[in-house]
Amino acid sequence: MTALDDRLARVAINALGEPGDPRLLDAVTQHGAPRVLDMLVGQRTIDDLQTDPEARRSASDPERTLAEAAVQGLRFVVPGDEEWPSQLDDLALTAPLQNRGGVPVGLWVRGPVRLDQLVGSVAVVGSRSATTYGADVAADLAADVAAAGRCVVSGAAYGIDQAGHRGALAGGGTTVAVLACGADRVYPASHRQLIEHIAAHGAVVSEAIPGWAPTQIRFLARNRLIAALTTGTVVVEAAVRSGALNTANWATRLNRPVMGVPGPVTSAPSQGVHQLIRSQAATLVTSGAEVLEEVSAAGEHLVEEPRGPVRPRDRLTTRQRQVLDAVPVVQAAPEASIARTAGLLLADTRGVLATLAEQGLAEQVPGGWRLAALARE
Amino acid sequence: MTALDDRLARVAINALGEPGDPRLLDAVTQHGAPRVLDMLVGQRTIDDLQTDPEARRSASDPERTLAEAAVQGLRFVVPGDEEWPSQLDDLALTAPLQNRGGVPVGLWVRGPVRLDQLVGSVAVVGSRSATTYGADVAADLAADVAAAGRCVVSGAAYGIDQAGHRGALAGGGTTVAVLACGADRVYPASHRQLIEHIAAHGAVVSEAIPGWAPTQIRFLARNRLIAALTTGTVVVEAAVRSGALNTANWATRLNRPVMGVPGPVTSAPSQGVHQLIRSQAATLVTSGAEVLEEVSAAGEHLVEEPRGPVRPRDRLTTRQRQVLDAVPVVQAAPEASIARTAGLLLADTRGVLATLAEQGLAEQVPGGWRLAALARE
Repeated sequence: MTALDDRLARVAINALGEPGDPRLLDAVTQHGAPRVLDMLVGQRTIDDLQTDPEARRSASDPERTLAEAAVQGLRFVVPGDEEWPSQLDDLALTAPLQNRGGVPVGLWVRGPVRLDQLVGSVAVVGSRSATTYGADVAADLAADVAAAGRCVVSGAAYGIDQAGHRGALAGGGTTVAVLACGADRVYPASHRQLIEHIAAHGAVVSEAIPGWAPTQIRFLARNRLIAALTTGTVVVEAAVRSGALNTANWATRLNRPVMGVPGPVTSAPSQGVHQLIRSQAATLVTSGAEVLEEVSAAGEHLVEEPRGPVRPRDRLTTRQRQVLDAVPVVQAAPEASIARTAGLLLADTRGVLATLAEQGLAEQVPGGWRLAALARE
Repeated sequence: MTALDDRLARVAINALGEPGDPRLLDAVTQHGAPRVLDMLVGQRTIDDLQTDPEARRSASDPERTLAEAAVQGLRFVVPGDEEWPSQLDDLALTAPLQNRGGVPVGLWVRGPVRLDQLVGSVAVVGSRSATTYGADVAADLAADVAAAGRCVVSGAAYGIDQAGHRGALAGGGTTVAVLACGADRVYPASHRQLIEHIAAHGAVVSEAIPGWAPTQIRFLARNRLIAALTTGTVVVEAAVRSGALNTANWATRLNRPVMGVPGPVTSAPSQGVHQLIRSQAATLVTSGAEVLEEVSAAGEHLVEEPRGPVRPRDRLTTRQRQVLDAVPVVQAAPEASIARTAGLLLADTRGVLATLAEQGLAEQVPGGWRLAALARE
């Protein structure tokens, strides 16, 4: 078998089967494409069912399919190619989900970004009916991820997907759209400009043969690819049943980090994300920096935990803090009472109180001492 | 030693020491109150430091302190009393935090709710500078918890504390305020009406002797009591450094569930909560029902996970779903192509398509079949 034989057999199988058909793809992984093609043709499966003229033509003349795709700027990337993203091979060891699964026989690609550049990439997915909050957060997060040199992968859908792609472009980085329809097509239609821009500067990818329309099955197959191509998946807003959660499930199945951006508990599009975090299927993230930490090798991207501003009291000695902590908030207390509370001698307490007054933290008023405005911060 | 001796010794110690002084309280746990009082007096600690006239008078005449407190409607509840909330005894086994700790020598209580009724209670705490989102969520959540017969415990502060108390009252339940100042006092002053209402219908509790002012040390000591009195602590909005996180730390130390309500990642008051959830110090909760599940015995309060509305496609048979999943979203496909995608015989596919059309899920148009509006939901 030559590499060309293998490639042509894969094109033929791609035209005969559905994206992500686990039985078909597992057979190819096990027996190789040429043998599976022989089996398919021998069993006359084609004659029984294969009556769609376009698909039949593609299957019977893969060379022509490849040539026609090339004219449209599409290449067919298969296992063994230098460009093949080997992280997809993990799909061979992963059980199907909603009857989709398996390593694709190949991927149709349109655009300058090579698929082997997707090592370390991050999926940003979520609700099609996103809120402006969700879209803004997704865009910011994608911009930070892209600015750190990591490709942002999504599905070019309305809402979060679109915001993720746009954020990555705004961050000066690369972005890749994985479609459920053929990579020569545009879905949704109103995202033509976005998808063409991605094809010009990033890559538009599909497991479906050029010309094919999007169906529910193909969306499910596509979601597994988004999870399998990337190092981690971030879900920003997702209704309780949504494609984004399907992608998250695939990432879990592939043992890749799943991250969720929380939102108001009163917001329906955040419900699915909160459920993921609650069930510990996702780690809560609030920023691009936290996403980078999750998907990086240990210690590579350490996020400094927010600690709040340094306050004047932070600069005090232990003894000064002891006294300050004993000074009442509003109603003044005499020095002796403060000394007792602080557990210090009266003379020492007096000295410290004077220092605290100089620093504007305590003030002497009739009846004793109380906190000054600065210490009440 | 009689029970009265013990009670009076505890009042005297209460007047001499600070709330939550771990060395003092551990000594009482170990040696008993009368012996510790003897030690304190013998070492003349009182003469050295005890120059605050009011405190000295309380320490030297505990009977009078009790009598005066009783006139104000305050009782002093000590270990061994029927009303003693035995969950506080866990503090004897818990290491100090910020130099506070230990089982209180007693608690001053004003109000009809007995402290032994706090078994199963829930703490609702959070930012003083809460957003309306946070306050609304805290109130709703407290109302649900209170309506389920569980007392809501908080600190009567501005913001989340106040919302928690008010929510519990609105839910027709009981609520308890634990103060850093004496239980006869009111802090903050503008919450007089709220605190008096709680004293009339719930209980106002303090470890500090009546008359004492709130200090930073007493807030820290108070936070440990909120965590120790309750079965679980819910944090709703908390700045990165806040008393609410101190309470959460105490709950963790006491091995009680800590829960956090998420919010927009763009909202500063939610930052501390997100950090708690990220570090797995808190479980994300979005409703009173989820709080009840966390603090209940396994299986007692099972939350049904939100599953979204039942959609027409949910009622389909497997075969009908297979066909429907193969129908294109927008651009119609011929029956043969749909049959191939679905992996079914053409004749079967035809029959199913007709059924789907009757149910308003698929529609026949020139060129084949596509999804109808109902199926695109």
